[in-house]
Amino acid sequence: MNYMDYAIEEANKALEKGEIPVGAIVVKAGIIIGKGYNEKEGKKDPTQHAEIIAIKEACANIGDWRLIGCEMYVTLEPCPMCTGAILQSRIGKLYIGTFNKDTGACGSVVNLIDNRNLNSFVNTIWTYDERCSKLLQEFFKRQRQK
Amino acid sequence: MNYMDYAIEEANKALEKGEIPVGAIVVKAGIIIGKGYNEKEGKKDPTQHAEIIAIKEACANIGDWRLIGCEMYVTLEPCPMCTGAILQSRIGKLYIGTFNKDTGACGSVVNLIDNRNLNSFVNTIWTYDERCSKLLQEFFKRQRQK
Repeated sequence: MNYMDYAIEEANKALEKGEIPVGAIVVKAGIIIGKGYNEKEGKKDPTQHAEIIAIKEACANIGDWRLIGCEMYVTLEPCPMCTGAILQSRIGKLYIGTFNKDTGACGSVVNLIDNRNLNSFVNTIWTYDERCSKLLQEFFKRQRQK
Repeated sequence: MNYMDYAIEEANKALEKGEIPVGAIVVKAGIIIGKGYNEKEGKKDPTQHAEIIAIKEACANIGDWRLIGCEMYVTLEPCPMCTGAILQSRIGKLYIGTFNKDTGACGSVVNLIDNRNLNSFVNTIWTYDERCSKLLQEFFKRQRQK
């Protein structure tokens, strides 16, 4: 399995719970130290996006708020909240599975990751993976059938 | 007391713990339903900003991720993460005590609250209060004396 496979595994857990299927993992030196999937509806908490959950778990695991040298793999382009959290956490590299034309903050709607006026930045690698967008299509298909 | 006084009370708690002094409260129909102060260092968690803590408490109190009809009072202009969380939560009005020229995302560095391409927005009222900026000055003065 490659790392995006694990993020997709997380997104699948969200889909099965009727949440918008987004998954994320944090990797340090080849080891997954945090993972999460979108649980906003189930937890009744707007901050429970995959990326925030994965960051919190990673920080708890290493006992530091600085995720220096860490990478995140996320199935969907992060929103402003999550992109901001990624910047706060000092994650060094971000791999994104598909773009988010509604709230994407890594270039699609706004661009927070390449703004030299903010005091941190993250190297972002777009790794388009059809499985990431298909999961979202499947979710919205199920929603329409309800 | 006015509502900003309560946010300043929260910011003071952060100062006493050696954290950057920022405080926030969420108000619904005149009642404070969430409050928080910056605890990033103490909790070793980059998401533990005042605004996120206040939003999570407010959501837990009302059992909904939607803080519709709620107002937030925050002593410092929110960063991209927190502005994104405020947008996610559907808070209707945001009162800000002072600007943040380093990471402010409500106009100072980037502007996420008045971007018509994002799918939500928040009415923002700047209520400059010298106490909010003085708290920050006091914190950085203490840091330099260490």
